[in-house]
Amino acid sequence: MTKPLVFTGNRFDRAAQFRNDPVWLEQKMADPSTRFLPMHRLKALIELAGDPCIDWRGLADVQEFIDQGATLVFLGIADFAAHFAVDVSAIENPKAVPNSDWGKFIDVRSVSSQLRPGEAGALAQARSMLAWHENHQFCSVCGCKTAVNELGYSRKCVDEACNASHFPRTDPVVIMMVTRGDYCLLGTGHHFPKQQYSALAGFVEPGETIEQGVRREVFEETGVKCGDVRYHSSQPWPYPSSLMIGCFAEALTEEITLDEVELADAQWFSKEDVRLMLARSGTTETPRMSPPMAIAHQLAKAWVEE
Amino acid sequence: MTKPLVFTGNRFDRAAQFRNDPVWLEQKMADPSTRFLPMHRLKALIELAGDPCIDWRGLADVQEFIDQGATLVFLGIADFAAHFAVDVSAIENPKAVPNSDWGKFIDVRSVSSQLRPGEAGALAQARSMLAWHENHQFCSVCGCKTAVNELGYSRKCVDEACNASHFPRTDPVVIMMVTRGDYCLLGTGHHFPKQQYSALAGFVEPGETIEQGVRREVFEETGVKCGDVRYHSSQPWPYPSSLMIGCFAEALTEEITLDEVELADAQWFSKEDVRLMLARSGTTETPRMSPPMAIAHQLAKAWVEE
Repeated sequence: MTKPLVFTGNRFDRAAQFRNDPVWLEQKMADPSTRFLPMHRLKALIELAGDPCIDWRGLADVQEFIDQGATLVFLGIADFAAHFAVDVSAIENPKAVPNSDWGKFIDVRSVSSQLRPGEAGALAQARSMLAWHENHQFCSVCGCKTAVNELGYSRKCVDEACNASHFPRTDPVVIMMVTRGDYCLLGTGHHFPKQQYSALAGFVEPGETIEQGVRREVFEETGVKCGDVRYHSSQPWPYPSSLMIGCFAEALTEEITLDEVELADAQWFSKEDVRLMLARSGTTETPRMSPPMAIAHQLAKAWVEE
Repeated sequence: MTKPLVFTGNRFDRAAQFRNDPVWLEQKMADPSTRFLPMHRLKALIELAGDPCIDWRGLADVQEFIDQGATLVFLGIADFAAHFAVDVSAIENPKAVPNSDWGKFIDVRSVSSQLRPGEAGALAQARSMLAWHENHQFCSVCGCKTAVNELGYSRKCVDEACNASHFPRTDPVVIMMVTRGDYCLLGTGHHFPKQQYSALAGFVEPGETIEQGVRREVFEETGVKCGDVRYHSSQPWPYPSSLMIGCFAEALTEEITLDEVELADAQWFSKEDVRLMLARSGTTETPRMSPPMAIAHQLAKAWVEE
């Protein structure tokens, strides 16, 4: 790959030592180099004139939202400047942006492939963090309100007797290329475009290893038993906060018993099939593989090229 | 290793297809082969006469707790029997157990090394799940109460307007053997036994890959920069719900700048040092490595043996 997989290019120094440093924050808020990424209901402000890029704004443009209590998350330092995401969901009509020179609010997934890797990585971080804040306004221990803490990296229960701290979720998901000789097992979900195939995947559950999660998910979804599991690579996937853990798994059996609740279809495909399906990815021809931005596509590519 | 790493030996068929099947549950509740693991404030009922083992009980022993609304979690099927964990924290004095033939409530970590691998794996699963239920009695979206759903694999907000579903957390943690030629970088925390060293570790954050998490944590804690990262193995760690992702990382620099908030010390050790530290593990001699049940110990062992 000449370009890293989408969402994996985050290059911020997260500078966690400043998360509890109000003096530093005050300095950065007064520093004209500090940049803010406005996000509206998890869509990011993107400048679409020319090559798409994040429409970073200065403090003046987001001050009113911060004053109104908008969630502010420190993303990190890059090019000697502090970068923050700010939740401007208070804007009632996002098409009528506050300043006429603002870009547009765009779904992160639909634009990230067109951004520079570092910017797509920034969007993965910002979207996961703001989605978590949005869904954790209340304390799961006692039901009271929570408030932002540590520049966005925790929330704290406002009830002094409870005082629980809550931390952002990152949900590990195993996604695996199941192979048997020159064949691999791919599936398609009910919500997928018809005849678009992907690697099988599922959340790691409490009490299991990555390898056990791989074997369990493959068996649950297809009845196929797997032996050796080999880690390949990982990808953050901000819908809302998955960490995709890409693996290869060696199948020990071939017969497919489909879990029809989870999958619309699962089949064995040859390397020849998969080469064709990869080439069709992004077209309307079928059967085809999921698009290049998905780690499944990269796993399949690595397999046919190995 | 002749015995798998502690907590990695879970052998239940989690049989997720039954999580929404009340008829199946009713059958299993009437089935005398069904077994229950009573847990009291996250300690597990252990039979200590002879080799320690989980003191699985029949329905009669836990019925009163279930009738009173105790949290019940389906662990899975093994030996043709359904296994559940049941939270009996309602017992006021856990030393006076309900039946004189019950074992004792024991901290999971302190006993797991002595259990068969499958039993230690069951405790990892049960402890993570019950800890999550305990801390998620309220909906983080709206603050209303939540109720157990899907045999323990989700909780649902009881407010019909909200109706949010919540799923158990699994928090990915990177733990890495940082090496440079014949030397490796180990650290010790403020809460560790004095001069007991371990691999550096930290939570994966939203928007980063496993490899980026490794490099960020090493840099944050010691100022050492890393290049190549290689995955080794994983381990569930139920305190409360971590997934330890064991890696090797190649250091590019040597100078240590200690994060004194996170660590009490970090040093480069030679292979010779680490062999000695591994041999001292479990003794009171220092410096020594963390105990064999920790994935850090296994990473160090793999490194000196490679």
